[in-house]
Amino acid sequence: MRPAPDPSSSMRTVTAGVDVGGTKIEIAVVDGEGTVLDSHREPTDAEQGPGRVLGDLTGSLRRDYLPDYPGLGAVGVGIAGQVDRRNGILRSSPNLKWTDVPIQSKLEDRLELPVAVGNDVDVATWGEWRHGAGRDVDHVLGVFVGTGLGTGAISGGRLVEGCRSSALEFGHVTLVEGGRDCTCPSRGCIEAYVGGWAIGKRAREAVEQDPDAGRAFLERAGSVDRITARHVDELFEQDHPLARRLVKETGRYLGAGLASMVNVFAPCVIVLGGGVIDGMPELIDLARSELENRPFEVYVENTELRRAELGEKAPVIGAAVMARDELLEI
Amino acid sequence: MRPAPDPSSSMRTVTAGVDVGGTKIEIAVVDGEGTVLDSHREPTDAEQGPGRVLGDLTGSLRRDYLPDYPGLGAVGVGIAGQVDRRNGILRSSPNLKWTDVPIQSKLEDRLELPVAVGNDVDVATWGEWRHGAGRDVDHVLGVFVGTGLGTGAISGGRLVEGCRSSALEFGHVTLVEGGRDCTCPSRGCIEAYVGGWAIGKRAREAVEQDPDAGRAFLERAGSVDRITARHVDELFEQDHPLARRLVKETGRYLGAGLASMVNVFAPCVIVLGGGVIDGMPELIDLARSELENRPFEVYVENTELRRAELGEKAPVIGAAVMARDELLEI
Repeated sequence: MRPAPDPSSSMRTVTAGVDVGGTKIEIAVVDGEGTVLDSHREPTDAEQGPGRVLGDLTGSLRRDYLPDYPGLGAVGVGIAGQVDRRNGILRSSPNLKWTDVPIQSKLEDRLELPVAVGNDVDVATWGEWRHGAGRDVDHVLGVFVGTGLGTGAISGGRLVEGCRSSALEFGHVTLVEGGRDCTCPSRGCIEAYVGGWAIGKRAREAVEQDPDAGRAFLERAGSVDRITARHVDELFEQDHPLARRLVKETGRYLGAGLASMVNVFAPCVIVLGGGVIDGMPELIDLARSELENRPFEVYVENTELRRAELGEKAPVIGAAVMARDELLEI
Repeated sequence: MRPAPDPSSSMRTVTAGVDVGGTKIEIAVVDGEGTVLDSHREPTDAEQGPGRVLGDLTGSLRRDYLPDYPGLGAVGVGIAGQVDRRNGILRSSPNLKWTDVPIQSKLEDRLELPVAVGNDVDVATWGEWRHGAGRDVDHVLGVFVGTGLGTGAISGGRLVEGCRSSALEFGHVTLVEGGRDCTCPSRGCIEAYVGGWAIGKRAREAVEQDPDAGRAFLERAGSVDRITARHVDELFEQDHPLARRLVKETGRYLGAGLASMVNVFAPCVIVLGGGVIDGMPELIDLARSELENRPFEVYVENTELRRAELGEKAPVIGAAVMARDELLEI
């Protein structure tokens, strides 16, 4: 006979997850099964500086959550940028324009709770690994295509990290040497073809080159410079020829990028998520054929491409679950 | 006062390393400091099949080494191909043309010693990490440029591996989408620009395009189809203009590839070795400038590019040391 479950055990595994992005902060309370019990979003005013933003954040947690969840045992933070997870320092964030912020110690002082800090895509990958599309394996590559293209890797049940920093900026691996401008110091990066910003830019260039073919884009957006990936998505739904071409090309570039990733990590599962994938899920099938023909055969046999399961909540869930896994004795 | 060293302790950490390549097998006995005590090479006749080759290998070990080193505690094997290290099975080797060979169990049965098996580049990286150019850090990327371009990664003191297989074929990450033919199923791979075979091919193409500029190549090699990377190396030493151009281009491609690797692994140290690097060590400096300008700044600050220290012996030393680290209680 198994022992009766301890009624307090699920309370003991409740943690909070925080996702600090360039435009918004999301906070969630998550239970031991990775289920969100409570959450909200507030805008980030990154220009006010980390002191103010972290102050507001601790205020929200203390006011809105800690009283209702007295057993809440730890807080996990995912943040856009390079993070040294050993000491919880954000080393650099191009989005927030912050450098060397000791997030963990600042929050621990104010909250009197243990805090873990990681890169936002790393924690999202962690969430998909523990409670999402990669929960049955220990080698998971998370690939999230939103405005940019972010990746995280779990290898042998451990997050792959760099030297005094998070790592895994596979979006900034070269796909076309000397190719399209990127937002990073390099050129021809995978993100510069597949990221949401890049899809929008490629669409604007295509419409400029052939305004007749792009008339429907112009009608929707009002002007060339207002065309975004969302218009590609919407017109693809209506089987518009230019949108179809752009999506097909995007799928091929994405597949080529994934093939490179498979040759490096040979994961059991690639979890593919993010706003661009949610808007154009057809990209998954379009990418698959490149993925089947390019990497080493053993790797192709081992690797399954799956759609992410946690949706937009992946970073907050992942941050909370990372804090649970790393900081609580269960 | 520290206890006197146990005179038998260094004997207890003696292990054998074996490097099984497409054309030769190397065997070495290695002590606890990573020093080679004894070694030899013999040709591999891979076409005879794994049974025969492994039989010859165990014969050599039992005849030539085990009697002289009675304390030898374990055997490590590095082999060119995809290896599942958990059970010591070679899953596939394009070089040897073997598939699904249970190397570990076959050798353990015949040698009555514990055996560990890994990919040859992974074990070479392991060796450089424990006793070579990466011995002071726990995040090491090994990049070995010989005929091909092989990579291995230690992240947080652990080898990065794939799903039921070794991983890290960074040589087959795309550098130029739709670019030069590769030996693998893909195109435009880093190896197709920087590997020894690719340098030779690029040289042959350059000489065919402009036989006048390539006269010195033709004189040395006898005919276009006999030009190899070695001729590029030799003529570069003599400051030959075409050789200089080829080496410069190779350095730029190598640096672009390394920049991608830094954006993925953000290692503390990249250890650069292999025959092509030994022949043209100038490639290290040529690659460095790409490496300083392309990855994220935090990563550039953290990553040091160093020349490998163990030379051709890296795989046998690494295999022996992996066996020591994984199989012996010290």
